[in-house]
Amino acid sequence: MTIKELTLDLEKYGDKTITLSGWVRSNRAQKEFGFIMLNDGTKLTNTQIVYDLDLSNFKDVQKISVGSSIKVIGKVYLTPERKQTYEIKASEITIIKDAGENFPIQAKRHTREFLREQAYLRPRTNLYNAIFRTRSVLAFAVHQFFQDKGFIYVQSPIITSNDGEGAGEMFTVTALKPGEKDFSKDFFGKEVFLTVTGQLHAEAYAQAFRNVYTFGPTFRSENSNTPTHAAEFWMIEPEMAFCDLNGNMEIAEEMVKYLIKVAFEKLPEEMELFNNFVDKSLIDRLENVLNKPFRKVKHHDAITILKEANQKFEYLPEYGKDLAKEHEKYLTDVHFKSPVFITDWPKDIKAFYMRLNDDNETVAAVDLLVSGSGELIGGSQREERLELLEKRMQELNMHSDGIDWYIKLRKYGGTTSSGFGMGFERMIMFVTGIENIRDVISFPRTPKNCDY
Amino acid sequence: MTIKELTLDLEKYGDKTITLSGWVRSNRAQKEFGFIMLNDGTKLTNTQIVYDLDLSNFKDVQKISVGSSIKVIGKVYLTPERKQTYEIKASEITIIKDAGENFPIQAKRHTREFLREQAYLRPRTNLYNAIFRTRSVLAFAVHQFFQDKGFIYVQSPIITSNDGEGAGEMFTVTALKPGEKDFSKDFFGKEVFLTVTGQLHAEAYAQAFRNVYTFGPTFRSENSNTPTHAAEFWMIEPEMAFCDLNGNMEIAEEMVKYLIKVAFEKLPEEMELFNNFVDKSLIDRLENVLNKPFRKVKHHDAITILKEANQKFEYLPEYGKDLAKEHEKYLTDVHFKSPVFITDWPKDIKAFYMRLNDDNETVAAVDLLVSGSGELIGGSQREERLELLEKRMQELNMHSDGIDWYIKLRKYGGTTSSGFGMGFERMIMFVTGIENIRDVISFPRTPKNCDY
Repeated sequence: MTIKELTLDLEKYGDKTITLSGWVRSNRAQKEFGFIMLNDGTKLTNTQIVYDLDLSNFKDVQKISVGSSIKVIGKVYLTPERKQTYEIKASEITIIKDAGENFPIQAKRHTREFLREQAYLRPRTNLYNAIFRTRSVLAFAVHQFFQDKGFIYVQSPIITSNDGEGAGEMFTVTALKPGEKDFSKDFFGKEVFLTVTGQLHAEAYAQAFRNVYTFGPTFRSENSNTPTHAAEFWMIEPEMAFCDLNGNMEIAEEMVKYLIKVAFEKLPEEMELFNNFVDKSLIDRLENVLNKPFRKVKHHDAITILKEANQKFEYLPEYGKDLAKEHEKYLTDVHFKSPVFITDWPKDIKAFYMRLNDDNETVAAVDLLVSGSGELIGGSQREERLELLEKRMQELNMHSDGIDWYIKLRKYGGTTSSGFGMGFERMIMFVTGIENIRDVISFPRTPKNCDY
Repeated sequence: MTIKELTLDLEKYGDKTITLSGWVRSNRAQKEFGFIMLNDGTKLTNTQIVYDLDLSNFKDVQKISVGSSIKVIGKVYLTPERKQTYEIKASEITIIKDAGENFPIQAKRHTREFLREQAYLRPRTNLYNAIFRTRSVLAFAVHQFFQDKGFIYVQSPIITSNDGEGAGEMFTVTALKPGEKDFSKDFFGKEVFLTVTGQLHAEAYAQAFRNVYTFGPTFRSENSNTPTHAAEFWMIEPEMAFCDLNGNMEIAEEMVKYLIKVAFEKLPEEMELFNNFVDKSLIDRLENVLNKPFRKVKHHDAITILKEANQKFEYLPEYGKDLAKEHEKYLTDVHFKSPVFITDWPKDIKAFYMRLNDDNETVAAVDLLVSGSGELIGGSQREERLELLEKRMQELNMHSDGIDWYIKLRKYGGTTSSGFGMGFERMIMFVTGIENIRDVISFPRTPKNCDY
C-alpha cells in the first residue's frame, strides 16, 4: 500500500501489519535500534519506521544510506498524543537498492543553486516535492476550471510558421544538416519556429466553439538570465467569442481565486511548508487576494496615481509609457493593497491585434498586477474590425505572411473576442512564494543551460 | 445565454424570450418567412430560428450568408412531439458580421481533404466540431483518470539534449542564424532537439513521487506521409515505481476502458455522429472492448498462432521479428476478437532501457493491439540493474552523453519501474473511427506542411 492510503484511513490500520515501499530520507542507527524516515512520494511528510535487533539483517539495515529504496513489513502503532500520530515497528526490511555514500542529496539543507544542478534528484527533497506536487494539482485545477465552464481545450501547434506576437525571439526548428540553410529543402519546405503563443490559433477555434483555452508549452529565445525568464514555459490562454474586456477580467479574476482556493484545500501540508520555509507572508498575502474584488484602473489614471504618489521612483512614471517593476509594486502593495487590473493601454506599447478604443490612442488591453509577482496575466479584446486590423499592421510595417488566415477570420463572421495569457510558472511562483522560475520547472531551459 | 444552457433546462425557458449569439450554419429564406440554423459552439446540434416579415430588417436577414455571426432575440417554442424539440421565433436579429458569399464552408458536404486546407475554419463543421470536442473531453478525462489515482503530472521538457529512444529522427532547435553551425555559440551552447519522449524524465520523477504521468507534445522528423504519422503529436506517458509489467498492463487496460466510458457518457451526440457518418461498426467495436478483459500473449506464442493460422499473409510471421499490420489485424480481429497485450518481445527489436528477461533473449516489453488502430500503447518494465543497462548500451554502441543522469538513477536507490506511452491522437482515432491523423489535430504538421 502507499503512505497516502495509510494516512487517509489511519485508525483502520492500528495494530495491523502492513507493507510499504519507498525511499529512505534519513536513518538514525543506534546500537540496538534505529529510526528510518521513509517517503514513498505519495505524501509530503515522512513515515517513521522503528527497527531493532529483532531484524535478522539488523546490521545491514543500520547501514542503509539516504536515498536507498527499501520494502518494509511492520505493524502500525497509533500515537495520537504525539505530533507524529503513528509509526511503524518493522518486522522485516528488504533493501531494494542502496544509494551508496555518494548520493548527492544528504539529509541536510542544500542550497537551491546546488539542487538545480541535481534536477533529476531534487524532487526527492521536501521543498521540491511540495513544489512539483503543487504544480501537478494546479495544472489539473486549470483544466477543471475551464472544463466545468464548458470551455474546449485546444492543443494549439508547437511548430509554427508565424510569429504570433510579432516580437521576434523565436527558435528555429529544422531537420537540415548543420550549416545548411536552404529551408525549401527542409522538412516543412520553409523556415518554421517554436511557438510563442497559442492565441492566434485559439481565436480561430473560439469562432467555432465560443469558449476555448490552450494549455501548452511556449518558447522565447530571449537571452535573459533573470529569475523570471525561461526559454521554455507553459502558458494558459483562454479565448472567448462574444466576450468583451469586462467579461475577460471576470474570468481572469475567477480563475486566479479558484487556483488559490484549490491550493489551500488540496495542499495544506505544502502551503504550510511554503509559508514556513519560503515566505512567511505567503498565506496572508494569498488570503488577502481571495477576500476582495480585484481593483480596476485605466493606464492613464494609474500614471496619475504614480505621479501624485509621495514616493521617489528610480524611473519616472510617464503617460504613454510602460510601467516599471517599482511602479507595479507601488500600485499593488501601497496604493490599492490588492491585485489590480490596468486597462486601456497606449496602443504603441501593445500588440497589433488589440482592439482600438474610440480615443484612437489606447487599446482594450489589460494586465493583472499582483503583489510579489507583478504582471500575472496579460490580455485584451481583439480587433475584430478587418479594416482597422489591416491599418494597424500597415502602421507597424507587419506583413501578413503566415497569418493571412488569422486576418481572414475577421471576414468570415468574426465576432467580438477576448482572451488572456497566464504564464503557468508565474502562477506557481505566486502561489508558492518561490522567486526563481528555475525552481518551479522540472528541467528548466535557460541561456547556455539545457542539461538533462 | 448559450445553447447548451438553454437545452440543459429547456422546459424552464418555454414561451420565454431569450437572447442567443452564434454563427449561421444555413439560412433558408422563403418569400414571407425563413429558417436559420444557428450554432454557438457550445453544442453539436443546431438551433432552428424562425423569422418572418415582423422583423424590421426582414430583407437583410433573408440575405444573411452561411458563416455569419448574429445575435437573436426570440421566444422559445417547445415542440416535444417533434424530433427537434424546440425552436426560436425571432423578434429581433442583429447581424454582427456577415461572412460574405466567399465563405469557403458552405452548407453542403465538403471532402475532408478540402477541409484540411481550411484548418482554421473546419471546426465550424459538424464533423470537426464533434472531433475536437471529443479531443477536449478525452484530454481532460486522461488527467482525471491519473489525478484520481494520485499520479503527479510532470510537464517534461520539450527542448532536450538527448535522444530518448535512441532512434534519431529528431528536429534540431536553434537560435543561430541560417547557415551557421557552431552550436557552442548557440542559445544553449550545444545542439539541442525537440523531444521524442518524456519517459526518461518521467522515470526520474517516478523515483521521487512513485506514480507520475506526462501529457505533452512530442516530435518526429520522420519523412512519412501516411494516415497515421504526424511530425507533432501529443503523448501520455505514465511511469510507476514499485510496479512490474503486470501492474503496467492493469493500468493501461483500465485507462483505455475509462476513456471509452467517458466518451459514451459525456459525448452521446458526437458518438452517434461518428457511428452514423464515419464508421458504422464503431459503437459495437468499442462496446466489445469494454465488455471483457483484454487478452495477453507472449510474442513467441503470438508468432506460433500466426504460423498455424489458416491464412495467407503477405509477410511471413517470424520468431524474433516484428509484427506486420496484417498480423496485428489477424490477432485482434480473427483470433482473439479482443484487444490483446503482446508481451516479452525479442530484445533486438525493442529499446535499450527495457528489462531483460531471464531467458536473456526477450525483454519485459508490451504492446497493446486493438482492432482498427493496431498498436495503441507501447510500454515496458525498465531495466533497473545498472550493470545490465550499461552492458546493453555497449552492445548497441550507445554513448551516455546527455543521459548519464538517467543511468545514475539506477545507482541512487532506483527501484522497479514500469510505464507506457500512448499517442493521444491514436486514441482519438480509435474512439471516433477517424482514419487520418490529420483530422484529429487542430493544425497538423506533416512533411512539407506547416501552414497556419
